[in-house]
Amino acid sequence: MADVPDAAQAFRGRSVVSADDFSKEEVLALLDAARAYDPVQRGDAPLPPSLQGRVLGLLFFEPSTRTRLSFESAMLRLGGSVLGFSDARQSSFSKGESLVDTIRVVEGYCDAIVLRHPREGAARLAAEVAGIPILNGGDGSNQHPTQTMLDLYTIREAAGALDGLRVGFMGDLRYGRTVHSLASALLHFDVDLCFIGPENLQLPSDLRDTLKAAGRLGSEVELLSDAGALDVLYMTRIQQERFPDPMDYERVRNAYRVDRAALEPFGPDLKVLHPLPRVNEVATDVDDLPGALYFQQTRNGVTVRMALLDLILGGAS
Amino acid sequence: MADVPDAAQAFRGRSVVSADDFSKEEVLALLDAARAYDPVQRGDAPLPPSLQGRVLGLLFFEPSTRTRLSFESAMLRLGGSVLGFSDARQSSFSKGESLVDTIRVVEGYCDAIVLRHPREGAARLAAEVAGIPILNGGDGSNQHPTQTMLDLYTIREAAGALDGLRVGFMGDLRYGRTVHSLASALLHFDVDLCFIGPENLQLPSDLRDTLKAAGRLGSEVELLSDAGALDVLYMTRIQQERFPDPMDYERVRNAYRVDRAALEPFGPDLKVLHPLPRVNEVATDVDDLPGALYFQQTRNGVTVRMALLDLILGGAS
Amino acid sequence: MADVPDAAQAFRGRSVVSADDFSKEEVLALLDAARAYDPVQRGDAPLPPSLQGRVLGLLFFEPSTRTRLSFESAMLRLGGSVLGFSDARQSSFSKGESLVDTIRVVEGYCDAIVLRHPREGAARLAAEVAGIPILNGGDGSNQHPTQTMLDLYTIREAAGALDGLRVGFMGDLRYGRTVHSLASALLHFDVDLCFIGPENLQLPSDLRDTLKAAGRLGSEVELLSDAGALDVLYMTRIQQERFPDPMDYERVRNAYRVDRAALEPFGPDLKVLHPLPRVNEVATDVDDLPGALYFQQTRNGVTVRMALLDLILGGAS
Repeated sequence: MADVPDAAQAFRGRSVVSADDFSKEEVLALLDAARAYDPVQRGDAPLPPSLQGRVLGLLFFEPSTRTRLSFESAMLRLGGSVLGFSDARQSSFSKGESLVDTIRVVEGYCDAIVLRHPREGAARLAAEVAGIPILNGGDGSNQHPTQTMLDLYTIREAAGALDGLRVGFMGDLRYGRTVHSLASALLHFDVDLCFIGPENLQLPSDLRDTLKAAGRLGSEVELLSDAGALDVLYMTRIQQERFPDPMDYERVRNAYRVDRAALEPFGPDLKVLHPLPRVNEVATDVDDLPGALYFQQTRNGVTVRMALLDLILGGAS
Repeated sequence: MADVPDAAQAFRGRSVVSADDFSKEEVLALLDAARAYDPVQRGDAPLPPSLQGRVLGLLFFEPSTRTRLSFESAMLRLGGSVLGFSDARQSSFSKGESLVDTIRVVEGYCDAIVLRHPREGAARLAAEVAGIPILNGGDGSNQHPTQTMLDLYTIREAAGALDGLRVGFMGDLRYGRTVHSLASALLHFDVDLCFIGPENLQLPSDLRDTLKAAGRLGSEVELLSDAGALDVLYMTRIQQERFPDPMDYERVRNAYRVDRAALEPFGPDLKVLHPLPRVNEVATDVDDLPGALYFQQTRNGVTVRMALLDLILGGAS
Repeated sequence: MADVPDAAQAFRGRSVVSADDFSKEEVLALLDAARAYDPVQRGDAPLPPSLQGRVLGLLFFEPSTRTRLSFESAMLRLGGSVLGFSDARQSSFSKGESLVDTIRVVEGYCDAIVLRHPREGAARLAAEVAGIPILNGGDGSNQHPTQTMLDLYTIREAAGALDGLRVGFMGDLRYGRTVHSLASALLHFDVDLCFIGPENLQLPSDLRDTLKAAGRLGSEVELLSDAGALDVLYMTRIQQERFPDPMDYERVRNAYRVDRAALEPFGPDLKVLHPLPRVNEVATDVDDLPGALYFQQTRNGVTVRMALLDLILGGAS
């Protein structure tokens, strides 16, 4: 559908394991291509059944309803079908079969596989043995590249461009794979990064080193009030299980929560993103702000995944 | 597909939260429209792919295989697709996300949502925040409006008309939401109602008051043999968990069970309905009676839901 | 799609309960028909949407991801849709409903049903009450007829013919239903059978009697090294739960494991099959042998099931 011959060439038949695998040109080509699918996702344009007869396998070794449904919606909107499982415990793949065997079996059932797996590197391994494209739907706390692409798309569509922005990340900087992927992908652009999080949930050292080497570490602060001016605030959920002491969790949880009042100093143009689900870290009084983009962000997830599936499976060529 | 312009106008884009939301004219329009889908459900007519490319979301926060599969079948028969989850425990929506957030996310993935939720009022809340139609697939012991429509359709097709009937409800009158919804919807018609149930499972007082105010309470008896003549007997399952003492349950369970012999006094024209699943409350020797409609009733569920989905999503216009 | 009028006549609308229900001519007709679907499964031929608008019900009362996904893939590749459940525990069918009632309800939702059930004879019972075809997807340790058809297809395509082969079965000969079904179906052909298994997992006596009466029992040995020349080695997994003493299991498990070295004496033409999943009974160093057919075997599962569904549901006529 999309008229992007170069991107089609770059993406056709390709696995998507890490956001870092894409060059800046490829990222921009995908974001450009996605725009054509936006009216389809909104229901304002007829659905192109470009993937009719094609089957997407969804292997979710840990539950992730949101990512799963978003991929399903994208595939179904393009006329394709889906199969798979949403929880490894219900599947016979828990009978001791290796991931390699599972992939070699399931690749006989479909044209591409979305893999969600608790182990870091699972998607890379799967992509090495599979004869069909593997799309990483999250491997442990490592990568979630399609989330990164939809985050980039959301910021770019809302702000007009990626270059020149100051982007703050707040919450769980240590285990939040959406933070790692997005921060890393933003290195392609001329952005200034700021990290706001509690002492025990700071950036992992390898990512900090990468950012530092690129001269993009920006500031690391513990309080939002110390962050300075921001164009974008990317929030994440802090998970209780990271804190052995419930008291510590309660304290941190309330410190890394924003409401309308807390965001006021940043002005009306601040864009607020969140990969969702939220618990209480973004108060519902933020929802009506023009810059509250998190629900738009989940819709963009379908848009960007439609573009990606169409490019990879050849529907867009 | 159906040639019912007024109904199409009334249903297009609309949520279905409670059977009480429909006027008598709307109920009849739906039941008339459904007739056109009956040959399709039976496989005697070609399938109209009127909802091709449309996606129905199924959010089942408690399991209900029958309602879920019936909606799925209806949507698939019309050329559409489905996505969702069948048990909230497997979904990431159990991570503490509010129902409002869940709806605002999932509405980005589909064109309408069927919601099954243990909490009364969940469907009403969802319909208020959603930008797409919400179909209540059961909210606690409150409402299950599409079950009511298929019950009405089944009675009307079998008896020729709804006016003039004497309808008995037997079993759990207190918690059985199918009883509540159907009794309430029958107020649109000139019917006589009779309620047969154990002392601790009588009608809830608000429904009794409504029926009384409308002059339709009819008789309330404890034994089927005291019910008098009946055209329709609507059976429900009595759930063990309503009885703290297992002995009480055993006694009641056997008293509210019918077999061929128990139904003989009502004559050969008695229609027997049951929302299913049954445990033992309708003996299998009833299955061969011409008036045993419960399996036809489940098939009618697909027919009526096809009509409803087609009207709401615009395939019928 | 397939041009096999006799087979179409024999299969149309028919249930598939046991491999023994098929005559030799019917088996061959199915295997011939399947060949036409192989390029479709491999993605080398356009997809025939011959089952568009048709719905396949998948009732899995015990999990079996592989069989379920293989049937789903076959149905989706033919343009059809699927619905059902993958685990009875999540379904409301666990509320005490009889299997007969479940079948009579679900047959209203679809055009054919694949049934996986832990009880022997469940598929036979379902086929007797259903008005639509029932496909046995495994009933206890009894039958799994579509697995047998794909096994036969795999052997025939690889070896050129079924007659004249010497086929060894190794592992759990007692509870392995794939062994029972395939050995029984091979009676149609001029093959020599050999059984290799531990003392407590020998063939069930009724199957041994059948094979003996047909003069086909061949040899029964405890060690692969005593099996003599083989054209085909059909491996099965030995399940830990068959051994009350873990020590016994460990001993047997290692004795019924093959690697490249153990297979060398059989020469380069040996075909190795396994229904999968494997744990360690076939070492991964076997995977690269030209005769290692188990991954091809799972792909053939889609091919054969496409042919079967198309023949039964009339898409092939």
